Amino acid sequence: MALLDDLLQKRVFPVELERYCTYAMEQAGLPRDAAAVSARVLTTADRWGIHTQGARQIRQLMKNIRDGRIDATARAGVTAAGPAIAILDGNRAMPLVTACTAMESAIRKAGEAGIAYVGVKRSSHIGAAGYYATMALPHDMIGIAMTNTDPWMTVPGGKGPIMGTNPIAYAIPAGSERPVFLDIATSSVAVTKILAAKAPGKRLPEKWLVDDAGRPTDDPANYPAQGALLPMAGHKGYGLAVLVETLTAMIPGAAFLSGVKCWAFDIPDKTNQGHAFLAINVGAMTPLVEFKARMDAMIREIKAAPKAGDGRIYLPGEMEWERQERARRDGIALPVYVLVNLIRLAEDTGTPESLAAIFH
Amino acid sequence: MALLDDLLQKRVFPVELERYCTYAMEQAGLPRDAAAVSARVLTTADRWGIHTQGARQIRQLMKNIRDGRIDATARAGVTAAGPAIAILDGNRAMPLVTACTAMESAIRKAGEAGIAYVGVKRSSHIGAAGYYATMALPHDMIGIAMTNTDPWMTVPGGKGPIMGTNPIAYAIPAGSERPVFLDIATSSVAVTKILAAKAPGKRLPEKWLVDDAGRPTDDPANYPAQGALLPMAGHKGYGLAVLVETLTAMIPGAAFLSGVKCWAFDIPDKTNQGHAFLAINVGAMTPLVEFKARMDAMIREIKAAPKAGDGRIYLPGEMEWERQERARRDGIALPVYVLVNLIRLAEDTGTPESLAAIFH
Repeated sequence: MALLDDLLQKRVFPVELERYCTYAMEQAGLPRDAAAVSARVLTTADRWGIHTQGARQIRQLMKNIRDGRIDATARAGVTAAGPAIAILDGNRAMPLVTACTAMESAIRKAGEAGIAYVGVKRSSHIGAAGYYATMALPHDMIGIAMTNTDPWMTVPGGKGPIMGTNPIAYAIPAGSERPVFLDIATSSVAVTKILAAKAPGKRLPEKWLVDDAGRPTDDPANYPAQGALLPMAGHKGYGLAVLVETLTAMIPGAAFLSGVKCWAFDIPDKTNQGHAFLAINVGAMTPLVEFKARMDAMIREIKAAPKAGDGRIYLPGEMEWERQERARRDGIALPVYVLVNLIRLAEDTGTPESLAAIFH
Repeated sequence: MALLDDLLQKRVFPVELERYCTYAMEQAGLPRDAAAVSARVLTTADRWGIHTQGARQIRQLMKNIRDGRIDATARAGVTAAGPAIAILDGNRAMPLVTACTAMESAIRKAGEAGIAYVGVKRSSHIGAAGYYATMALPHDMIGIAMTNTDPWMTVPGGKGPIMGTNPIAYAIPAGSERPVFLDIATSSVAVTKILAAKAPGKRLPEKWLVDDAGRPTDDPANYPAQGALLPMAGHKGYGLAVLVETLTAMIPGAAFLSGVKCWAFDIPDKTNQGHAFLAINVGAMTPLVEFKARMDAMIREIKAAPKAGDGRIYLPGEMEWERQERARRDGIALPVYVLVNLIRLAEDTGTPESLAAIFH
């Protein structure tokens, strides 16, 4: 592929990548506002260096629209609401837009009530849960976002995939220090990391998997055809994954465990994922300036702690903020698997020239 | 010790242990209602088989009262309140009572608002955080409880103790199945487990510690004089511990990191721990009968999943419920370190005959 060889030599600025992604999704049939929101969510993951959750997912999401698994023009609707809670029916609308709507609702309600929970059913893949958590930051609130996923993870005593990797993400505002930010799967590691580590005879750094008999293993040779991910920290990650499943699916009434269908497989089934969004309005409880000073003091105490060797201590999210700043300044050299997906998206939507034009 | 030898041969029923603990704390100067609440919290941990967080802690808590670190007759007061939030000043009152007051407040507010958060400052050690989470169950609510602790855990890139073990606990009601329940430290393992595993030349099952240079190790020989606990699952447990620190201490304005002083050391400093309690009123969002049916279905699907070997799959909390049932039926054979502490408590309070009388 001449275009791929060309793009591999070049870089792209995030703002231009976002504009192209909006355009390509419009060409694929998504209304302009939904395309713009979705492009913002996905390219933010690329800004953070989390390319597995970035623009490379657009082509598959657009395939979900063609296959009738996502309804391009639907909108989420409210099925239950109170001063500090709401349940949204995702109505199989574009899931990244639904998630933004839900987080905005949580933020609005927390403005009055101090804290709010919004659960979502009949949704699908939402990319990096962390994006929605960061939406709380401009409002000086703490944001928390979770989703269930189709099953990839076993549980202690079991074998084979039983639960989703059920990520938890949060964002916490600080004062003059950067916000604290985390976006983690409750499994030992993300599926994509294992696939990336696969090579003949190569072992994983730790026993992240179980084999087909349920034995912990560092051998990825037969994964994902056989075996499953282990939970992070054994029964602890399992327990947190059950909490995520409850808040995201059991309260809103979404699918759970084996009932969740993978958005990335070529199957007709609706995914019916569930999500949970929380906003905590710190200023309703303590003077914001004092809270932010305390956050700065905590961050500085952690960073100034004695080091193992001559490295440094990173706060959660610090690596993502540094990568975001580099991306804004220098552009991003996208990895080959992202470029391949973008080129195929461009072919699907008749936009190869527009894609080529954003790389420098 | 003749009494110890005697009690080691006998069992005690939880209800009698609870009654004795109430009496002993009254003799130590705690008002009757505070003694009764504290005894209920601590002996519940013994019912669950979590004896490290049980009645063995009473003697040290009573020493905190004698030393002026806990004020036996103080009560927590409200410093901020809204429809779904509150901040309590623990006023150095008996911390287990303060935590119950805070969780009751969260449950009451969630009854109206659907969800509620109550933060606590100027408190101290609260035993098993899980107890407070279970207080939501009779109200058909989900309970979540967290506390920060004095520093025992290092963070990635660091060495030595930097953060607390910052536990997270939750309880979720089900239908005909038992509630789901979890109470975990965000460190690799509890300090007490490492101390229990110490024996000349003996290694830990995994690298739960760092040594004095910050290198991960399974050798507990120099701990806790040197080294520190690792977070569970590396950066993931670290990130969750920072969230717990924020919700428990940074919002309420409690001490954080090195500012938290250990309740179990013989030092004059006030601990000033912070806690966070959340209640989620499921019935405000979805018909309770449907939620409980979904919980039952999730629990059954997990338990019925393919097993590794011929064991069984436990739901989070299932082991604790089974131990609680056994304790009610057969009584408890308390381990020696619990009996030693109870006998010393009895000596301190002039109640050895009352203690001996509850063992059969």
